[in-house]
Amino acid sequence: MNKLIGNAVVGQSGGPTAAINATLAGVINGALAAQAEGVIEHLYGMRNGIEGFLREDFIDLTERFAGGRDIDTLAATPAAALGSCRKKLGSPESDPELYAKVFEILKKHNIRYFFYIGGNDSMDTVYKLSEYAKGHDYELRVVGVPKTIDNDLMATDHTPGFGSAAKFVATTMKEILRDVSVYTVKAVTIVEVMGRDAGWLTASAALPVLSGGKGPDLVYLPERTFDTEEFIASVKAAMDEHPAVLVAVSEGIRFADGEYVGAGTQSGAVDVFGHKYLAGTGKVLEGIVKDRLGCKVRSIELSLPQRCAGHILSGADISESLEVGASAVRAAIAGESGVMMIFVREEGESYSVRVESYDISKIANAIRTVPDEYINAAGNGITEAGLRYLAPLISGEVACEYENGLPKHIVL
Amino acid sequence: MNKLIGNAVVGQSGGPTAAINATLAGVINGALAAQAEGVIEHLYGMRNGIEGFLREDFIDLTERFAGGRDIDTLAATPAAALGSCRKKLGSPESDPELYAKVFEILKKHNIRYFFYIGGNDSMDTVYKLSEYAKGHDYELRVVGVPKTIDNDLMATDHTPGFGSAAKFVATTMKEILRDVSVYTVKAVTIVEVMGRDAGWLTASAALPVLSGGKGPDLVYLPERTFDTEEFIASVKAAMDEHPAVLVAVSEGIRFADGEYVGAGTQSGAVDVFGHKYLAGTGKVLEGIVKDRLGCKVRSIELSLPQRCAGHILSGADISESLEVGASAVRAAIAGESGVMMIFVREEGESYSVRVESYDISKIANAIRTVPDEYINAAGNGITEAGLRYLAPLISGEVACEYENGLPKHIVL
Repeated sequence: MNKLIGNAVVGQSGGPTAAINATLAGVINGALAAQAEGVIEHLYGMRNGIEGFLREDFIDLTERFAGGRDIDTLAATPAAALGSCRKKLGSPESDPELYAKVFEILKKHNIRYFFYIGGNDSMDTVYKLSEYAKGHDYELRVVGVPKTIDNDLMATDHTPGFGSAAKFVATTMKEILRDVSVYTVKAVTIVEVMGRDAGWLTASAALPVLSGGKGPDLVYLPERTFDTEEFIASVKAAMDEHPAVLVAVSEGIRFADGEYVGAGTQSGAVDVFGHKYLAGTGKVLEGIVKDRLGCKVRSIELSLPQRCAGHILSGADISESLEVGASAVRAAIAGESGVMMIFVREEGESYSVRVESYDISKIANAIRTVPDEYINAAGNGITEAGLRYLAPLISGEVACEYENGLPKHIVL
Repeated sequence: MNKLIGNAVVGQSGGPTAAINATLAGVINGALAAQAEGVIEHLYGMRNGIEGFLREDFIDLTERFAGGRDIDTLAATPAAALGSCRKKLGSPESDPELYAKVFEILKKHNIRYFFYIGGNDSMDTVYKLSEYAKGHDYELRVVGVPKTIDNDLMATDHTPGFGSAAKFVATTMKEILRDVSVYTVKAVTIVEVMGRDAGWLTASAALPVLSGGKGPDLVYLPERTFDTEEFIASVKAAMDEHPAVLVAVSEGIRFADGEYVGAGTQSGAVDVFGHKYLAGTGKVLEGIVKDRLGCKVRSIELSLPQRCAGHILSGADISESLEVGASAVRAAIAGESGVMMIFVREEGESYSVRVESYDISKIANAIRTVPDEYINAAGNGITEAGLRYLAPLISGEVACEYENGLPKHIVL
């Protein structure tokens, strides 16, 4: 194994999470250790992911966080501190000039290590850069670190960022349950949770049953077809038990014809990235309940706080995010490239994970959905097995640092 | 002063807050102390406010919380643990049987102290009961304790429950600001805050400027007429400064013709069933921005979590809520009746309040709105004086007790 001495660069890409800076903090910790060993000279942060890289908009992170100063505050700051982007690299064949420019910049700054924290699109960037590097006379080691609140990346047991989002969703559901239970009037409350294609985050809304015995009455994931008649019948049945009915739904649920339930109010609209705009699932179901049952009904969209509620972090998520970031640096120094860091859950009664690297070319551009055994037979609830999978991911708390009554954040 | 020995009863009424159980915990603390002094024998909790009282649906709180056991958990449990109601008592003239029944129940259980925690309607109940008692041969002392996240009750510097809601709103705004700032794409984010008639809670969205220097670009309160042209011009001006524009709006803002912005008269949208879509204030503004500026825009309704986010409580709010609850008991024992407990802010540099009682007959059924000097001249921001008023109310934190990764709540 050759000892590759030089600089390193790290970027963040895709949608924010509450833990993406903990992963960045982990990469910085790893780089500081490697700096002490004389392997990495500087770790640069690229602003706004690959966009900032191409502008050579760098910040020296080994200098900013020298001696580990402010690392804890960074780890508890939500959303990408370096800024993010949605840019996806084309193939080297389609855009040879771009790749030439990337490598020109790498050489200019003697960057030998490239760390990229992001979702599926970012892992595609990692793959393309590492493949391109192989055919060129410049040794570069490229390592990806996953993040997404959606928990839908292949190969890994779960993704950094999911646990904190799940803890926020489960906590908020537990609190909303207390709120809606104060009255004796019949009422339905529908909570819409993020997750277009996979229902992991919506499933976490069921977690309050493990802590106090009560949770939402119904939970609908995109993994199952949504049937209006079943929904109305199930709401009625729950209302026979208690006046306040609480429902969690994924934004991505669809009717049998494949149409998104949420498309009803926003049909045809696309967001700035060309994604179909889905903000109306809860509102559409609210309309259905009003129409069919005529009772009091309210819908709540949890929206952005799901991915940026840094004041309520999962302790497990943050320590694992720190660990996976540092592991990425160690893997690269050990010679790995073209890999994504993953979590492997150890067998056994008590929860533990180990971090491994995984050949990124083997990660299909596919979505890891919630498996059948985690969803109940009626398709409107989470099984014991599902809850057992989810529970450790929200465990533990992080003492949030406050300043003037508000959480302290780092702005880079 | 005669020493009035007997039982006491306490109820919660109106919309939940995250601190209403801290006030209840304070009443229990006060009753436990009075029990030790041989004045109060039992403190009963009525379920679902006056509704449960009329059903004689009581729980012995001095027994349940004997020795102060579980008081801290109760104080950190959001939403009325005794349940709530929206029932408003008519006048004794219009409903003499109801009052006769109330006093029959009081006598039957030897209840001499009546504590009611709630908003304007609940204070009306306190007033009517105390007035009725005067004319009848049964000594009863009735004391009200205010609560509302809206902070719009007269006579008091602020209301228990507001500080925690404000801390949640300000924290969430600060986190959303981090989230929306990660991209370089021009985008507008509109956050809708509760408060139909008074803008206190929306004003608290501006607090992040005191902690890190940045806050929302624009803040619109119901105290000012909403003007679409000023709004669009101000959003454009903010966007010239930075790509991500963040706006906080009260649900209760109105156009110059008095129509609520959220009534959706300008959007004309209908839902899948052809019903007029009651978009909500944020959604309507989202439509206006999309229409007029054509940029990426998202609206977020903070909804119920504003009044039940028990995992992020204001330390000041919780300790004051405990104090005001205990003070209510002391005031009643000292002979007061027909009063509401209020906070008076002491003069001076550092923040402190004292609790006093206030003649409830002097509290007009009026709304305390945000004063002019707290709103900037353009009507789209909060002044330094406003921030100085708000800041101490969100100060301090409460260590939340967790169980299986989720906040622990008491269910009575």
